[in-house]
Amino acid sequence: MSKKLWGGRFEKETDALVEKFTSSIEFDKKLYNQDIIGSMAHARMLAKTGIISKEDAALIINGLLEIKLEIEEGNFEFTSNLEDIHMHIENRLTEKIGPVAGKLHTARSRNDQVALDMHLYVKEKTAQVIKLLDNMCASLLKLSEKHADTLMPGYTHLQRAQPVTLGYHLKAYYYMFERDKERFLDAEKRSDIMPLGACALAGTTLPVDKEYTKELLGFSKIYENTMDAVSDRDFVIEFLSCASILMVHLSRISEEIILWTSSEFDFAELDDAFATGSSIMPQKKNPDVLELIRGKSGRVFGNLMAMLTVMKGLPLAYNRDMQEDKEALFDTAETICSCLEILPKVLLSMKFKKENMAKSVEDSFADATYYAEYLVKKGMPFRQAHEVVGKMVKYCIKKNKKLKDLSIMELKSFANAFESELNFDKATVVNNS
Amino acid sequence: MSKKLWGGRFEKETDALVEKFTSSIEFDKKLYNQDIIGSMAHARMLAKTGIISKEDAALIINGLLEIKLEIEEGNFEFTSNLEDIHMHIENRLTEKIGPVAGKLHTARSRNDQVALDMHLYVKEKTAQVIKLLDNMCASLLKLSEKHADTLMPGYTHLQRAQPVTLGYHLKAYYYMFERDKERFLDAEKRSDIMPLGACALAGTTLPVDKEYTKELLGFSKIYENTMDAVSDRDFVIEFLSCASILMVHLSRISEEIILWTSSEFDFAELDDAFATGSSIMPQKKNPDVLELIRGKSGRVFGNLMAMLTVMKGLPLAYNRDMQEDKEALFDTAETICSCLEILPKVLLSMKFKKENMAKSVEDSFADATYYAEYLVKKGMPFRQAHEVVGKMVKYCIKKNKKLKDLSIMELKSFANAFESELNFDKATVVNNS
Amino acid sequence: MSKKLWGGRFEKETDALVEKFTSSIEFDKKLYNQDIIGSMAHARMLAKTGIISKEDAALIINGLLEIKLEIEEGNFEFTSNLEDIHMHIENRLTEKIGPVAGKLHTARSRNDQVALDMHLYVKEKTAQVIKLLDNMCASLLKLSEKHADTLMPGYTHLQRAQPVTLGYHLKAYYYMFERDKERFLDAEKRSDIMPLGACALAGTTLPVDKEYTKELLGFSKIYENTMDAVSDRDFVIEFLSCASILMVHLSRISEEIILWTSSEFDFAELDDAFATGSSIMPQKKNPDVLELIRGKSGRVFGNLMAMLTVMKGLPLAYNRDMQEDKEALFDTAETICSCLEILPKVLLSMKFKKENMAKSVEDSFADATYYAEYLVKKGMPFRQAHEVVGKMVKYCIKKNKKLKDLSIMELKSFANAFESELNFDKATVVNNS
Amino acid sequence: MSKKLWGGRFEKETDALVEKFTSSIEFDKKLYNQDIIGSMAHARMLAKTGIISKEDAALIINGLLEIKLEIEEGNFEFTSNLEDIHMHIENRLTEKIGPVAGKLHTARSRNDQVALDMHLYVKEKTAQVIKLLDNMCASLLKLSEKHADTLMPGYTHLQRAQPVTLGYHLKAYYYMFERDKERFLDAEKRSDIMPLGACALAGTTLPVDKEYTKELLGFSKIYENTMDAVSDRDFVIEFLSCASILMVHLSRISEEIILWTSSEFDFAELDDAFATGSSIMPQKKNPDVLELIRGKSGRVFGNLMAMLTVMKGLPLAYNRDMQEDKEALFDTAETICSCLEILPKVLLSMKFKKENMAKSVEDSFADATYYAEYLVKKGMPFRQAHEVVGKMVKYCIKKNKKLKDLSIMELKSFANAFESELNFDKATVVNNS
Repeated sequence: MSKKLWGGRFEKETDALVEKFTSSIEFDKKLYNQDIIGSMAHARMLAKTGIISKEDAALIINGLLEIKLEIEEGNFEFTSNLEDIHMHIENRLTEKIGPVAGKLHTARSRNDQVALDMHLYVKEKTAQVIKLLDNMCASLLKLSEKHADTLMPGYTHLQRAQPVTLGYHLKAYYYMFERDKERFLDAEKRSDIMPLGACALAGTTLPVDKEYTKELLGFSKIYENTMDAVSDRDFVIEFLSCASILMVHLSRISEEIILWTSSEFDFAELDDAFATGSSIMPQKKNPDVLELIRGKSGRVFGNLMAMLTVMKGLPLAYNRDMQEDKEALFDTAETICSCLEILPKVLLSMKFKKENMAKSVEDSFADATYYAEYLVKKGMPFRQAHEVVGKMVKYCIKKNKKLKDLSIMELKSFANAFESELNFDKATVVNNS
Repeated sequence: MSKKLWGGRFEKETDALVEKFTSSIEFDKKLYNQDIIGSMAHARMLAKTGIISKEDAALIINGLLEIKLEIEEGNFEFTSNLEDIHMHIENRLTEKIGPVAGKLHTARSRNDQVALDMHLYVKEKTAQVIKLLDNMCASLLKLSEKHADTLMPGYTHLQRAQPVTLGYHLKAYYYMFERDKERFLDAEKRSDIMPLGACALAGTTLPVDKEYTKELLGFSKIYENTMDAVSDRDFVIEFLSCASILMVHLSRISEEIILWTSSEFDFAELDDAFATGSSIMPQKKNPDVLELIRGKSGRVFGNLMAMLTVMKGLPLAYNRDMQEDKEALFDTAETICSCLEILPKVLLSMKFKKENMAKSVEDSFADATYYAEYLVKKGMPFRQAHEVVGKMVKYCIKKNKKLKDLSIMELKSFANAFESELNFDKATVVNNS
Repeated sequence: MSKKLWGGRFEKETDALVEKFTSSIEFDKKLYNQDIIGSMAHARMLAKTGIISKEDAALIINGLLEIKLEIEEGNFEFTSNLEDIHMHIENRLTEKIGPVAGKLHTARSRNDQVALDMHLYVKEKTAQVIKLLDNMCASLLKLSEKHADTLMPGYTHLQRAQPVTLGYHLKAYYYMFERDKERFLDAEKRSDIMPLGACALAGTTLPVDKEYTKELLGFSKIYENTMDAVSDRDFVIEFLSCASILMVHLSRISEEIILWTSSEFDFAELDDAFATGSSIMPQKKNPDVLELIRGKSGRVFGNLMAMLTVMKGLPLAYNRDMQEDKEALFDTAETICSCLEILPKVLLSMKFKKENMAKSVEDSFADATYYAEYLVKKGMPFRQAHEVVGKMVKYCIKKNKKLKDLSIMELKSFANAFESELNFDKATVVNNS
Repeated sequence: MSKKLWGGRFEKETDALVEKFTSSIEFDKKLYNQDIIGSMAHARMLAKTGIISKEDAALIINGLLEIKLEIEEGNFEFTSNLEDIHMHIENRLTEKIGPVAGKLHTARSRNDQVALDMHLYVKEKTAQVIKLLDNMCASLLKLSEKHADTLMPGYTHLQRAQPVTLGYHLKAYYYMFERDKERFLDAEKRSDIMPLGACALAGTTLPVDKEYTKELLGFSKIYENTMDAVSDRDFVIEFLSCASILMVHLSRISEEIILWTSSEFDFAELDDAFATGSSIMPQKKNPDVLELIRGKSGRVFGNLMAMLTVMKGLPLAYNRDMQEDKEALFDTAETICSCLEILPKVLLSMKFKKENMAKSVEDSFADATYYAEYLVKKGMPFRQAHEVVGKMVKYCIKKNKKLKDLSIMELKSFANAFESELNFDKATVVNNS
């Protein structure tokens, strides 16, 4: 049972069950770096403003750096007796430098401290996600260029509709991920605000210099309102929203590759290194990675829903419900980063079966629109052109022909406007030039 | 049973149940204006590029304007025989101007047409929401200034923590709604892209001039990729995300007012015009409006979850699942607009009971932090200062006194650093100056 | 502006915006029948217990029956001046029978009245859903029997794994829907509880006879606790949960048929009456109905999330937030009923392409497991048997053979345990006998 | 890099990133006990049917028991080289007893194995939850009896409405938790089905005896369809649904206690052992435990939403997406168990401030309904009685009196039907007798 800061008046020890129930160290230890960086900046500010002495600040900062090293080298003991990462670090600092450690907490409360850690974490993860999205976009662009001429059927309703190129198809995803980048960048503006100095909720009468701390920590802005600063988790929810939309895209492209690598589509084959197999059916390559990416959309949507629920209807300012923000955020950040890390490798290592795709275009009447637009260009009203080509397709089905097999005589029997046999070729297909 | 465009080859009529099941006219008629505006721009572009004649375009545009008027004057017949708003308008146009109506659909498909309508709708609603948020912020600012000196307890964990002013408290919400505005503005960039010209999924070989249509319709950008254009609903989801975060804020401020107008808090009273009553307990004023706002967060979160689910794992390009985007979007847009419309009126008409708030501050030891910071300023380490004031509070509770009642003798018995009796006053309270 | 029941003391009229914002008539008019049935039972109880006279009760009941008729014949005027269905009916009753109408509301409040209506609605819809599920199960059973011998590949990871029969595959869904039935039946126990008599929240001191009302209305139980009675919406959430799991099943079977009717799978063809087409590609049959069913899962999940959010953290007893229960429930009930109504027709009218399915089994090595189990039966350890058959499959791929083409010599070269050529036949396939 | 079972044909090692991405050992090790119990039963069945020898089975079972002990004593090495708990145990078994370990996997696949583990886990957790709910109900009943006569205001819209007793109020929660129990018991029927024997998806041609395994493992039923058996996660979703409804109840009662322990309500005080404090404001007791319970509703709703999303639209049979079921389930089970464990202790240790509750009843006009019903009993129509009492309340407010202070003269001035002064007393209040 740990000594509590508020122990003085309470007549009973906190129940062990309460300690366990409210403890967050198991997950918030991920924030150790943010917490130490934040504390160092705070100590420097306290010294600069004369709230504590320069010597005390130096002792504190030195101690914090040592603790950081201990954690990173695995020499730091995490214990369930201390409920969170803040208490762990404060406690260790006291062991190291004695009571002066207590001065670090001047003009700060856990409410603004944890808000700061969360902001730093979101900023860091946002930067990481954007970098990974850059790589994803670059990979798609590369693939897209490589397959600028690879014909494949474009689908609507999972029915072959019109020919496109693989490059063009993949580039649709490029644009989705570009939007994701934009969206994370926009969201970043709302995580890039410093909450430190808000203290418990109402700031402090001590002469803090928030501007200085802001500079040290690399923030662009400071919260204008301290109650807002400690009770705002919008930036967490917005990160989860951006992540959810990103997962929609990731699940969509995964679904496509799962389809393409099925025996039925047979448009592509996964690289051995990125597939899993079956001991008995060596021809089988299971797209586990893509199924997992698709499935992980659920986890991220769930995290978003969780945080919206947590924050719904909470009065100002800090409420302990907000501790629930961490696991949802960490899990989401790690999920999207791992998906973004692995997917480009899957894509770049895949083998696309151009001949199967091309055959699939041929087998369909995916070129029908091309014929209709030919007639429109010759002056035929649109609805009529559609009707004519519809009849041509029916004729071909009956005769077991393709549209391009039709002779000029046959074409003219449908519409006099046809002036020559048409050779649908990929030059007419949308492409990513 | 309606004649279908594809009726030619199908050997059976569409089942009546299918017609009913797939029909969207009951809700997509809300898009009539967007649909007509989009069609007029399309017709002008077709004429400009010579795809249709200027005369045909004039006929079409005139017909569309007449239809718009018919709808707005209630003279338009909606029927379950025509499945959606596009068919209704096309059908009526054909009645009016004959087969030339069919030319309007050159180089366009319902896939890009409905995408356009949705973009126009989102853009319009975003503008409306931003205007309403402006008004909300202005109202909060006004109230906030009026109550810049109204003391009240600031809460953490719904326990009185430190004194703040009502103005400052309300201003925390001002900043939340300011962020909402920013967020909708950022989202707008991703709805402000024109999908027209994408046709079914692969564009057209006809010489369309998307740049011209874009200008006519007031868009900033054109979709670079046609498959993306018809299968993108990111802008809908992002609108729903922004709306969900907004509803978090609305539910939070509603919860606060529900608390404040309870007999127990008694910090405020709703205006008669914005409360509901009880026939038997005339003293009772129920905050129904605020309860409904709080509850409506569920609806909006649900709509967001709905659209994320719909889009999860959909392969390119258009799939009929996407028709489900409309009700979720319309319901959300209408919900947030109505909440934003009514809440400022509730707030501005409320009566705040300053004396009760002030008494509540006095009754608490919300000024304890002030005493602790006094000691810190006198050089006492932070943790020690807290301990000292903790003892003072215990002493006061026992003696049934307030901190400010303590004599200098009493103060000095706790810490010699006290140099005079302290008069906590509102000058030390955070405020919105 | 309508006269309010509580108008006496309020000094101002209710704001028009409030009336609109709080009004529920647009959606709760769906409850007219439940409301009238509930009121008739209540009136009979009031008469039986002597709280009102038999004559008054007769007048009231007669009036209510007339109103029911008016509504059903479209002769009832709904107006936005009266906020909900209860006020509409009370108001009309007063028009018809004068002040005696007011006696109907003795020992009843809108809180228990609306709870009753919701219970009646859920009970009715549950019965309807179960009936539709019965039909769904019967249809699947019928199809399943018809295709008891239709071979097809069974998939894992969307990769062909082992042969199954179409009948067996479809029967997996039969069991899912059977569980859905069970689940709705179980849920029904918790909607089958009568809340009437709870009044506003604390019951009444009038000598009501809840047992009698319960019998009249066909409930099995009465709420033991009146505060629970008016604040319980568990039965709504549970209905939405059951509906969500049902939508998972519906989305899964829809996805399968969308796959099966793609050109790539080509296992089945939709009936003309249950597909939609394209004006230009007459061979195309779009599975819009199935896509919509798949997409409607989002709407139902969203409704569930909405109601969980609404109820989260609400103190007892009635809060206006609960008015939000209606649209989520009605929309869900109507959605699942319409999906369950149409899907069996789609399934029963589809044409399955047995030869394509059979060929697909042949083309794969879906029979590999059969060979491995043969070896296990001959005494070979399982892991070794798998390894041997793995080698056989590799050999076949190289030689472009099927497993069943292997001669006894070839078989023995892999494992001496083979005693004859094996003829994998469908007798060994799992089936639904 | 681990040797893969399917390694034979693949030409490349699995990428390290894939191993990490697909690995589940970090969370599925929680299933070790279920996995071993399932394997022991499977081995006994294999021996009973003669598929393997009794000696082999004995070796296997012995080995498994040793592994179980190793894990429970912390002597088992978990490594990221083996992707899941099944591989860990199989691998260790092979180390212990050699190749005979491979026989355990006869007539079993990881698909039915993991399904079994999940069923066993859900059954076990359901039993635990029900036991905890029993305790919760017993605690509420106890408290409820203790406070059968403790008057307090009953609220609607968070406005005092009518007097109730604390016992009665608490008992409303008793009934909610009773329904939760029922709901989990009903759900249990659908987790109590054995999937073993389904193998990968299509069962086996080996002569397994599912009935025997079922008996050994204590299941009531066997899956009728093997494809259903490996692809069913309904029982997980249903557990999450039940958990979500339970969390609604837990969040509601938590909200009430948070309100009651605020200074404004001051109806109750948390025990020191179940509150957290502030170092500087010793009078402050923060209800962290209750805030966390309220907040944890988000996590559970999110998990439900996650699993619905994962399963939406998945074709049969096993897909790797389903691996995502575990963390959502484990987290939910642990969350609800810990909430149910701690809340009764919080409740039973709280001190209720009867005098404050009673005063609160007195201060309100919560007895107005009682007066109105008195008049109704004297024959006055209901609406009129309400109007009369409404006037009486207004009179009292003006005169600063309570209703019960009114003399018979005063009463008669409002309605002649009053025959004596009324003494509203708690006998007339709803209670839990």
